[in-house]
Amino acid sequence: VVVTVGDELLFGQTEDTNGSWLARELSRVGLEVVGRRVVGDDGEQIREAVGWGLDFAEVVLVTGGLGPTPDDLTREAVAGLLGASLRLDPGLLRALERRFRDRGYGALPEGSKAMACVPEGGVVLRNPRGAAPGLALESEGGGLCVLLPGIPVEMKGIFKPGVEKLLESKFGSRLRKILHREIHTVGVPESILMSEIQEILPGGPEGVDLAYLPDHLGVRIRLSAREGDGPEGAPAALERAEALLNPVLARYRFEAESGDLAEAVGAVLLRRRETLAVAESCTGGLISKRMTDLPGSSQYFLGGIVAYDNRVKTGLLGIDESLIREVGVVSEAVADAMARGVARCLGASVGVGVTGVAGPGGGSREKPVGTVCYAVSYQGASIVRKELFLGDRGSVRERSAHAALGLVFRVLEGREG
Amino acid sequence: VVVTVGDELLFGQTEDTNGSWLARELSRVGLEVVGRRVVGDDGEQIREAVGWGLDFAEVVLVTGGLGPTPDDLTREAVAGLLGASLRLDPGLLRALERRFRDRGYGALPEGSKAMACVPEGGVVLRNPRGAAPGLALESEGGGLCVLLPGIPVEMKGIFKPGVEKLLESKFGSRLRKILHREIHTVGVPESILMSEIQEILPGGPEGVDLAYLPDHLGVRIRLSAREGDGPEGAPAALERAEALLNPVLARYRFEAESGDLAEAVGAVLLRRRETLAVAESCTGGLISKRMTDLPGSSQYFLGGIVAYDNRVKTGLLGIDESLIREVGVVSEAVADAMARGVARCLGASVGVGVTGVAGPGGGSREKPVGTVCYAVSYQGASIVRKELFLGDRGSVRERSAHAALGLVFRVLEGREG
Repeated sequence: VVVTVGDELLFGQTEDTNGSWLARELSRVGLEVVGRRVVGDDGEQIREAVGWGLDFAEVVLVTGGLGPTPDDLTREAVAGLLGASLRLDPGLLRALERRFRDRGYGALPEGSKAMACVPEGGVVLRNPRGAAPGLALESEGGGLCVLLPGIPVEMKGIFKPGVEKLLESKFGSRLRKILHREIHTVGVPESILMSEIQEILPGGPEGVDLAYLPDHLGVRIRLSAREGDGPEGAPAALERAEALLNPVLARYRFEAESGDLAEAVGAVLLRRRETLAVAESCTGGLISKRMTDLPGSSQYFLGGIVAYDNRVKTGLLGIDESLIREVGVVSEAVADAMARGVARCLGASVGVGVTGVAGPGGGSREKPVGTVCYAVSYQGASIVRKELFLGDRGSVRERSAHAALGLVFRVLEGREG
Repeated sequence: VVVTVGDELLFGQTEDTNGSWLARELSRVGLEVVGRRVVGDDGEQIREAVGWGLDFAEVVLVTGGLGPTPDDLTREAVAGLLGASLRLDPGLLRALERRFRDRGYGALPEGSKAMACVPEGGVVLRNPRGAAPGLALESEGGGLCVLLPGIPVEMKGIFKPGVEKLLESKFGSRLRKILHREIHTVGVPESILMSEIQEILPGGPEGVDLAYLPDHLGVRIRLSAREGDGPEGAPAALERAEALLNPVLARYRFEAESGDLAEAVGAVLLRRRETLAVAESCTGGLISKRMTDLPGSSQYFLGGIVAYDNRVKTGLLGIDESLIREVGVVSEAVADAMARGVARCLGASVGVGVTGVAGPGGGSREKPVGTVCYAVSYQGASIVRKELFLGDRGSVRERSAHAALGLVFRVLEGREG
């Protein structure tokens, strides 16, 4: 059972992404989620929900309400429910005080001391990303209750690996993990992918669930097998299914642990010892941002120029003003000139240029909102594309950045031209 | 109480946006949400949750599980719980059959007839956007149970105005709307903000709820007032509370409809007729991306240089190689030179420079991972900051970009130096 705490969640002002994240993680480690509750910043509601959870399930995960303010009531409510008294942990207190001092905030406010309180018999789960640690405690009936802070990065940092280990040590071989394998594709719509797969494998792979997960950037294929469902074991079942599908997938797939196409682009740049520079207009830095999301990207990503204003295009990138006047700034010729210009300017072997109408304004009859031109220059040649992307400003920008990265990937993998 | 039904919700594969939408709507019309549950496609779970809801609350809204497939169990489960038998409604059946025919689907499949079943004593709520109508029925104890389909557009189309009217006729003047006001802050941690507010207003603003909503980028303050709680009316109560808090908040607050600090930065740039250029190293385009997320940003945002490789810093931005050798690339002096360099290079009146160790590698004893230097140059002067941000690569980058935007905002608002 997952219980998330917060008036902002209960009243719907914030989506309960913590609850869904935890539900996914619990499913992944092999526990079945039997209920989810959202409660307000209210001690009685927290007690009732956690008590109900312990009646129904062996594990109750609670997030939120561990902070320093008076509306943070989870620690006290759960300790009260389980009959455990709270005591101030001197080690935690010192760490909190140090944390405050190091940040130059001075002495620890009185209210913040609550974050150093631990219920009797409780286990402290280290929070590498924030102040309030997680707590784990057992009920008299043997149920496990885990309290985590509500700030997502902190909650996730404690769950992995702290809570995961705790669950493994409590349940051991009772956990029947579901194994998933995701295969990422780029440059193919869901309907084409599905019909090509149905042609070679009409019933789908035996003993393995096959799901198409499309989003606005592309289609992932998810293969799922549960340990113990077949004689061969889940990893072998996934292996077999993937081999069956590969004749279709090989043309579209890319490998990326993070699931991010930028990772695959980085890997092929590194393998081929090429370097990348990016000139962005409508994407406004998004491609550079995505390339540098990855650690180690300085090995192949030199940098970029966000040429938002036309003066930056003509100045830094050296694009002819007359070219922009003639064909317009959103044009294949300008995208090409941007790609070549930034590669020259930064001394990179691969250049990317993107220019388009992200909207909501700026569209015209010939170039409606969503018109985007992008180019990749490599080894003296350029490949240029013009597309019309649907959606709001954010989606047009995301799709444009993704399409440009896809073109870099396909060019460097030799799948283009 | 809001109950949402669906395995995909329970297991976290889909966010429970229906639940949060309904919670917001119920709060808006003046009902207090006292609990939210997510249950699977399981008759027993649905019965248990709705039964629990009727014990705790006067209204239980259920979404999902009204469709034609065998895993749609809500109608039957709730009718069973309330002891109402289901009967086929001839009018609904005819409408369904017509709907199918009109769409060219042919005869109504047997399973779809369930969508024309109504519990005895139940009220049918017209679904203008889909097949399955909503249903309303009363429990013996007088509780109201409303069933809505799980497809968001259909659910919303039935709620407004069907369910809203139903609630108004049931509760009439007992409905007391809640009004919220959110105030965004930048550059102050939750604990400091709280202690400063407690100093001037120890008991909090009278008749108004005050909540601190922190995330990894900043703290929002939410004021909530319920119509009828005080003599003055909710809007006036919020007004008064905000005025009382403003002596503290004025130093930190920013106005942004989207809640995004970049919007406030854009507004002050536009108001002061200044233009911005950004030089990014560790943030790799994130600041430019955030500035250009907003439509109309071309009025004040000229562009940026992502100087990821040091050659871009020395080449395009004109930073002395000897400076980098002497003080290191992650230094206040280099951040300052980047800010001045990019403003000069792009002809902007405000320049930003950010350089840091985003990690996970690249840290040292003197400059551990998370060390970030950022600078804003404006009117011939620079303001430079050095900070240590915690978290993974993504958080360090986000916090750095946010801190740099915060400094631009504070400088332009005259709150620095």
